[in-house]
Amino acid sequence: MFSFKSNITLTRGSSRNLYLQLCDQVISFIKSGKIPPSTKLPSSRKLSEDLHVHRKTIIAAYDELISQGWIETIPSRGTFVTSSLPLVQPKKFNFSALNNIAKEKSGFSFVTRPHLLRKLNAKNSLETLIIDDGIPDHRLAPNEEIGRIYRNITKKSYHKNLLTYGSIYGNTELRNNLVSYLNETRGLNVSMDNILITRGSQMGIYLASQLLLTNKNRIITGSTNYMTADNTFTEAGGIIEQVPTDNDGLDTIAVEKICKIKKISAVYVTSHHHHPTTVTLSAKRRMHLLQLAQQYNFAIIEDDYDYDFHYSNSPILPLASNDTNGNVIYIGGFTKIIAPALRIGYLIAPKDFVDEAARLRRIIDRQGDTILEQTLAQMIHTGDIQKHCNKVVKIYKARRDLFCLLLKEKLDNYFDFEVPKGGMAVWVTLNKAYNWDIICSKAKAVQLEVTPDWRRYDNDNSGHNGIRMGFASLNEEEIHEAINRLVTVFEKL
Amino acid sequence: MFSFKSNITLTRGSSRNLYLQLCDQVISFIKSGKIPPSTKLPSSRKLSEDLHVHRKTIIAAYDELISQGWIETIPSRGTFVTSSLPLVQPKKFNFSALNNIAKEKSGFSFVTRPHLLRKLNAKNSLETLIIDDGIPDHRLAPNEEIGRIYRNITKKSYHKNLLTYGSIYGNTELRNNLVSYLNETRGLNVSMDNILITRGSQMGIYLASQLLLTNKNRIITGSTNYMTADNTFTEAGGIIEQVPTDNDGLDTIAVEKICKIKKISAVYVTSHHHHPTTVTLSAKRRMHLLQLAQQYNFAIIEDDYDYDFHYSNSPILPLASNDTNGNVIYIGGFTKIIAPALRIGYLIAPKDFVDEAARLRRIIDRQGDTILEQTLAQMIHTGDIQKHCNKVVKIYKARRDLFCLLLKEKLDNYFDFEVPKGGMAVWVTLNKAYNWDIICSKAKAVQLEVTPDWRRYDNDNSGHNGIRMGFASLNEEEIHEAINRLVTVFEKL
Repeated sequence: MFSFKSNITLTRGSSRNLYLQLCDQVISFIKSGKIPPSTKLPSSRKLSEDLHVHRKTIIAAYDELISQGWIETIPSRGTFVTSSLPLVQPKKFNFSALNNIAKEKSGFSFVTRPHLLRKLNAKNSLETLIIDDGIPDHRLAPNEEIGRIYRNITKKSYHKNLLTYGSIYGNTELRNNLVSYLNETRGLNVSMDNILITRGSQMGIYLASQLLLTNKNRIITGSTNYMTADNTFTEAGGIIEQVPTDNDGLDTIAVEKICKIKKISAVYVTSHHHHPTTVTLSAKRRMHLLQLAQQYNFAIIEDDYDYDFHYSNSPILPLASNDTNGNVIYIGGFTKIIAPALRIGYLIAPKDFVDEAARLRRIIDRQGDTILEQTLAQMIHTGDIQKHCNKVVKIYKARRDLFCLLLKEKLDNYFDFEVPKGGMAVWVTLNKAYNWDIICSKAKAVQLEVTPDWRRYDNDNSGHNGIRMGFASLNEEEIHEAINRLVTVFEKL
Repeated sequence: MFSFKSNITLTRGSSRNLYLQLCDQVISFIKSGKIPPSTKLPSSRKLSEDLHVHRKTIIAAYDELISQGWIETIPSRGTFVTSSLPLVQPKKFNFSALNNIAKEKSGFSFVTRPHLLRKLNAKNSLETLIIDDGIPDHRLAPNEEIGRIYRNITKKSYHKNLLTYGSIYGNTELRNNLVSYLNETRGLNVSMDNILITRGSQMGIYLASQLLLTNKNRIITGSTNYMTADNTFTEAGGIIEQVPTDNDGLDTIAVEKICKIKKISAVYVTSHHHHPTTVTLSAKRRMHLLQLAQQYNFAIIEDDYDYDFHYSNSPILPLASNDTNGNVIYIGGFTKIIAPALRIGYLIAPKDFVDEAARLRRIIDRQGDTILEQTLAQMIHTGDIQKHCNKVVKIYKARRDLFCLLLKEKLDNYFDFEVPKGGMAVWVTLNKAYNWDIICSKAKAVQLEVTPDWRRYDNDNSGHNGIRMGFASLNEEEIHEAINRLVTVFEKL
């Protein structure tokens, strides 16, 4: 029988809270099979005595594990490891084999593609307000600090060599600091060899698509999905297979059904908060997806675009943190934390895949902006990024709360939504008696722009009537005003 | 008969020299057919009287036109428009039609591609010296000035909106300033609609290749060519057709022969100084190539990577300045002037092509670094870029002179070369009694690295024994030392 007392080690004074350390270890024991499904967990009182920590720490950890779906409480019986978790056995995935599939790209005409360009430069002034689809408030960006550090770097003669051709993998100091940062914040276990610095998440998606999806290779996405990602897959020559999504995210049973009849090269997943509906991929489905990736030999492109923005529990660790087999290409970036225009992101993958991606990147734009990369490296090292992140998360949480409160109070008859656990947008479903075209057009008359194009969320014309409403880029005054204007729109219908 | 007196207008006090104004206008009249081939030009004395300028101005202009191949002197008869110039009639090129060709990309395995990564970070100290293949000296980069302007931008609250999502075409102020800058320095006649800001020339080559070369479309290049460009074409799915190059650059007769039997989508040309051999495409061939592009409906990808670096005459205007038909995609950048790591370049093309390229760019990395782009916009506006360019051109000219002098004085028995008119490298042919492998390996023993990989210049194994030797990144002391070490290599053979 598994002994918590002898297997769990908690370190006081670590940068990671005690209760999160406990979660990390319990999850890793569940994943490795050391604590099998349906195992009864010790009571919080017993475990607090065994581990010499306060009982509140144990309760916080159990709450966290319940919210992530790893354990479940059965009334009057106790707390158990979730019975339905599938197991994943470590095995090495061969990217080169996948990659050697002859590459031939499918037809894709830019001319016929819908224009994606959004005019996002308009100010969120009280003149015209924009409810976007969930972008950061650039007014919160640490611009002066970035400018100061950037300049200091250019003044140091020993940084002169940053100005000549540098590594196609990105600035070494940034990659080095990212190793610690990501391993600590995301529960990853990666080294320098696994990191390629990109220009934001989008370049990560582009590189992965170009390497995996040529020759009409198939990729599975949710039946509502981030439209720019879909465009990137199609441009690379890939064929998209859709599976339904529900409150637990991507339907992995549907993924399995497709895998049984077709060769699948990749599955794209925004596991933390599904884009656009903001739901989280459940622990059960996470494990199932990893198991399928191993069984059917496909890559998981995990786009963790808003890992840093969670307001209720601690964030659910990415699939990449569970990936013992090397199937996951983990993509993230700093554009949402810092500013959309400062495009630095990363692609994390097995070394051979990172090498391929770097060689492709070389012919796209040679390398990143080394001074900006060095600036970010310093900000991670000093902890400035983490401080800034904590600051904006508090602000965005307050904005989410206010936005959802007002939406509920004033527009309950028209909209259906759940308060999102994180991110920058609420998934709002309009009562089917109404039509977004009319609402958006009437809104314009009261100087309110509602989301760039609602149809982008319903490419299949399923008529779900849902859109993303971004709350993060509006301050409290603007949120009040935006909701008031929306109220007048419905009143005048 | 053509009247120079009534057709030529010279403006004193313009930022362009009088003699260059005269050149520009004579060239444009030759190109338009108003001054036909074999026309006798007025004597310099006569023209100086007609135009009320000093005779030296006329002589300088005629010298320039002769060096560019537009006119020729026939002893004891006079000066004539070159007899063999072909004529080009204005006609609109249809990029969309070309683009609608079904796109299917050819097989290209990154795994089997030779590694291109060059370790260029090593210092050019007296410890180890590197004779590279022609890169700028990053020690001359205006780093402090860039840092200062960058920081000032981040301090201005009205620049905060640079931090959110911006135009996929690039910073508006930069595009606007580039219109004047390029029209003035390159003799172009473009507007904002024709400019896409890229991350250096390489991204321009990548975008053009991805839009033109899918589905095994054919591109013509020189039989020695810039290797990274060749790799970019192949990666896009294109098929390369080679034509010979000689002292006048790309053999356009050979281009015509291919066009007669095969559909060609594009011709890639580094017209100012052919890469790698540094020769200039003659005026006759320029006109011929434009005529062929019109006749056979192909795009010319003109990579003008070192337009700014010319040491003898004024630079020959790019093909793009002669392009009345819209066939030319003109690619350039600031990485060579400022610093390789500050990756800002541009792609100039007809509006429909620029629109396509911008949409592709959107899914690659969304947009450029707007603060850096704004920094450059300001430096162009204040003329700082031009001043910096003048400064480094003087330094590189002195380095070229010294490098070639020492090469001639000390290594004449081993090497054959012409002094290049511009650029950052000399095309040096090693006496065929010797072998680069041995030379490079012996050089390493005396702490001298000679060019990253000589084979890159001879992919066809023709045995021409030529390599590029870069002089720009070494200061005078380092040039003396490098040549001395090379001398010891040959002495010890």
